[in-house]
Amino acid sequence: MINGMMMHCNLNITSIMQYALALYSEQKIVTLKSDGVTTHEYTYKDAFDRVAQFANSLDRLLVSKDAKVGTIAWNTHQHFELHYAIPCSERIYHTINPKLPHEQLRQIIISAQDEVIVVEQDCLHIIESLYEHLKPFVKYFIVLGDIDKTLKSSLDFMFYEELIATESTNYDWPDIAEQSASGLCYTSGTTGVPKGVLYSHRSTVLHALTLSMPNVVGLDESSCIMPIVPLYHISAWGIPFNAVLCGAKIVWPNSFAGQIQKIYNLIQTQSVDVSMAVPTIWTALKNHLQENNITETTLKRAISGGSAASYSLIESLSHHGIALENAWGMTETSSLGACNRVKDLKNIPKKQVLKCGRPIFGMQMRLKDQHNELLPHNGISEGVLEIRGHNVAQSYSNIESNNGSKQLTNNIAEDKETWFDTGDIATIDMHGYMNITDRAKDMIKTGGEWVSSVEIENAMLSHPNVAEAAVIAANHSKWGERPLLILVAKPETQIAHIDIETYLTHKLHKWSIPSATVLIDEMPYTGTGKISKKTLREKYYNYFMESE
Amino acid sequence: MINGMMMHCNLNITSIMQYALALYSEQKIVTLKSDGVTTHEYTYKDAFDRVAQFANSLDRLLVSKDAKVGTIAWNTHQHFELHYAIPCSERIYHTINPKLPHEQLRQIIISAQDEVIVVEQDCLHIIESLYEHLKPFVKYFIVLGDIDKTLKSSLDFMFYEELIATESTNYDWPDIAEQSASGLCYTSGTTGVPKGVLYSHRSTVLHALTLSMPNVVGLDESSCIMPIVPLYHISAWGIPFNAVLCGAKIVWPNSFAGQIQKIYNLIQTQSVDVSMAVPTIWTALKNHLQENNITETTLKRAISGGSAASYSLIESLSHHGIALENAWGMTETSSLGACNRVKDLKNIPKKQVLKCGRPIFGMQMRLKDQHNELLPHNGISEGVLEIRGHNVAQSYSNIESNNGSKQLTNNIAEDKETWFDTGDIATIDMHGYMNITDRAKDMIKTGGEWVSSVEIENAMLSHPNVAEAAVIAANHSKWGERPLLILVAKPETQIAHIDIETYLTHKLHKWSIPSATVLIDEMPYTGTGKISKKTLREKYYNYFMESE
Repeated sequence: MINGMMMHCNLNITSIMQYALALYSEQKIVTLKSDGVTTHEYTYKDAFDRVAQFANSLDRLLVSKDAKVGTIAWNTHQHFELHYAIPCSERIYHTINPKLPHEQLRQIIISAQDEVIVVEQDCLHIIESLYEHLKPFVKYFIVLGDIDKTLKSSLDFMFYEELIATESTNYDWPDIAEQSASGLCYTSGTTGVPKGVLYSHRSTVLHALTLSMPNVVGLDESSCIMPIVPLYHISAWGIPFNAVLCGAKIVWPNSFAGQIQKIYNLIQTQSVDVSMAVPTIWTALKNHLQENNITETTLKRAISGGSAASYSLIESLSHHGIALENAWGMTETSSLGACNRVKDLKNIPKKQVLKCGRPIFGMQMRLKDQHNELLPHNGISEGVLEIRGHNVAQSYSNIESNNGSKQLTNNIAEDKETWFDTGDIATIDMHGYMNITDRAKDMIKTGGEWVSSVEIENAMLSHPNVAEAAVIAANHSKWGERPLLILVAKPETQIAHIDIETYLTHKLHKWSIPSATVLIDEMPYTGTGKISKKTLREKYYNYFMESE
Repeated sequence: MINGMMMHCNLNITSIMQYALALYSEQKIVTLKSDGVTTHEYTYKDAFDRVAQFANSLDRLLVSKDAKVGTIAWNTHQHFELHYAIPCSERIYHTINPKLPHEQLRQIIISAQDEVIVVEQDCLHIIESLYEHLKPFVKYFIVLGDIDKTLKSSLDFMFYEELIATESTNYDWPDIAEQSASGLCYTSGTTGVPKGVLYSHRSTVLHALTLSMPNVVGLDESSCIMPIVPLYHISAWGIPFNAVLCGAKIVWPNSFAGQIQKIYNLIQTQSVDVSMAVPTIWTALKNHLQENNITETTLKRAISGGSAASYSLIESLSHHGIALENAWGMTETSSLGACNRVKDLKNIPKKQVLKCGRPIFGMQMRLKDQHNELLPHNGISEGVLEIRGHNVAQSYSNIESNNGSKQLTNNIAEDKETWFDTGDIATIDMHGYMNITDRAKDMIKTGGEWVSSVEIENAMLSHPNVAEAAVIAANHSKWGERPLLILVAKPETQIAHIDIETYLTHKLHKWSIPSATVLIDEMPYTGTGKISKKTLREKYYNYFMESE
């Protein structure tokens, strides 16, 4: 084909910053300070002046181009600034989850070879404990928050605020090629070794653009968004880029995601109308509203990800004027890859409301059966979900040094027409609604029938005495595998296996009813806050064999 | 920089079609038939089945890859189908304005070397009259509309409907590289030789994506859009791509843009809520609503382009619940490049409502003075408007043959950091609102002062007896140039120069008041429907010299 004769302008993060400065320089960004009471407020213009200052700091410190700059930080304006200063000055931001186990943190930072680490004062101890491993490659430790001259550390560190204070607010932003790397985020999953996803400027800008469509997040300058989901979870689902592109007011709740009174106060005082978080937070908000007899808030849309929100939660929040919408994504999909925009809860079938949602533009989805054949999108056929798109990882990065050498790891096919195997079992209907019915490895084959562990878990979670539920396949002499139910009961309640059998009788197929129930005090969790099925399988896989 | 490790998926028109088929296959497309009364209705799925059929037809006819396929057609579902079938099968659609003068049509088609021409039955005479010029390169003439065996023509033609009827609705769509050419549209401007703008798949998809943002067009699947602006004007401002990307219902008014009763009927019967057209149409709609005492319609947003809508028109339509919004664009900007989204007319200063609007994402704007220095964006400084963006032409195409040879023409600088000189004089304010104050070449330098012809024209258009007004610079022995006013009066009204002087006294600077007025019966027009200042200048430039 001959080429068109239009300008080639790079889709880089710089272009989002410059667009927002041209249109929305006076828009506000508000951060709840670490005291949990007072707020820091400034404008986009102020923010991007400071972005230029930190970019100048990185240059003055001679931080390499292409260097990874690790961030261990909360949802604040400072962490937001890093999302622009680092990639727009030709470095790569690397968000690190401070809640990961020590060993994973060590693996991740060594894998990334961060040349700089920017860290909150209350996370400094993490870095101190890893220092012996990091000292070969980390050149600078930069501490966020206010300047506190009494702060003591075994590390040689600088204060972010001190560093940028004397820098110019001008920076001659380079026109970065769109395929250049901009950010790095590791996914731990349940399989062990952390895998790095290396986002590009192009993937980030296209994701931000796609999220701005009315059928996805659809912000404009009259919106006020508060990302409760942490910036270390795939940059709070890309909101630093999407919200700025759309000119929305942004509210950062710092490290207070878990303190629902503070979250509620921020919503009301800042007139937050859109927010995103995991279902746990929305459950807490629902309880808070109910306990305090609050009928309405400024919040109109709550986007839920990480795991599926239940219908009862969606329904409860709708009584407070809040549309709770399921969304789906992975580290490998630049976060949000599908969403279930519900405009009119009453007139949409319950079954549809509970689905993961429809793909964002640029995300293709298909289903494959065990023979690698494509399955129809009829809402019934279940198969392995494969995806493809400009916001989907091509391969994992495991960058050993700054010379650009890369190493591919497992899980992503490298054929001509690359598709990413999510490892999930899903259905897709004729209107594009995708629903995950199970993790491929969590499907249970019992007596020749497939049983969905997710289906049983969801059924159990509606039981009044159940706090948490997990179902695994356990080895069985007669049936091959049988579902084993593992429960945490609500405080001061009891639950017996015989009651569960009765409870599930009309809810599930006979063969889906677990053969046994194990009550435990606490679920094992992965570093990203998911129930560790791996741990449960290790412990209980031979439960039926041992009890014979 | 090292590269990110995300998938590269081509931003091609095929990806819009496939996305819409996955999500919105049942969405409706409605066309007013050529009888002006009945409608043709079908779904996206039906449309894209036919798109595949025509792509198969083009293959069967051995139409070259890269071939230009000219279209001389109205706003119908058939013309819509061509916007997908041609580019998605690796050819280039070339929309041709049937209302252009014969000589320009000849120039444009010879320049494009269309291998196929697809034409409405009532435009067939245009091609017949040009046949001697076209026969060296046009291989096929394909006629739109219903099959009419009584249709007579000197040409050897095929019916579109007959051609596709026997084809398969499956097509193995190639994954077209995003920089490939997809469409061609000529701009005549006022300068003579038509110049071709060759859009790419990438520029088209990015434009469609950007239009979908809430601060621009912002459609979703609950929207119903009727593009009244013709498809031969830059593909109806890109709506065939944007509306499908967003899953909106589309209504095509065929050739009836000028028949306001039919337009109104379509709005009401189809529940159209968004539409786009030139101010003339909106004035006609306003009159229709007033004359028939209609207080409200389903229409909520009317986007106005081509020239600026007046405040009185905006205000009048707001009383009927319609937000009339100015937009700005050129053939060289893939149509809409800026828009003025007005959410709350009462609380926005009149001056701001009348501005062209703010750039869409990806469009940068700057102002230069006569010394080539950048001017501040303060809403006051006036300078030449230069633009840059992925939907902006890099150069003009004048493709002499199918071997891919191209020839650049004037007007676009080819420096490292390419900017396109619009030839307009504009201001930009600190919130990004751009306003065109004049065409550079329509500025009048009189006695050392710059006078804006647009300012005088706008002042005159509010005069009750004035139907049309144009101001040109005319040669003057004393002042160098003086503004000369050329008027068409409203039927059965009169207007004298002395009245005009009085009328303008408190509206304009003394030196801006035209020195003379010429009353004419009819304005000369360019092929794209603009007043031909060039013709007026040729005729009246020496008006003052001759009258001395």
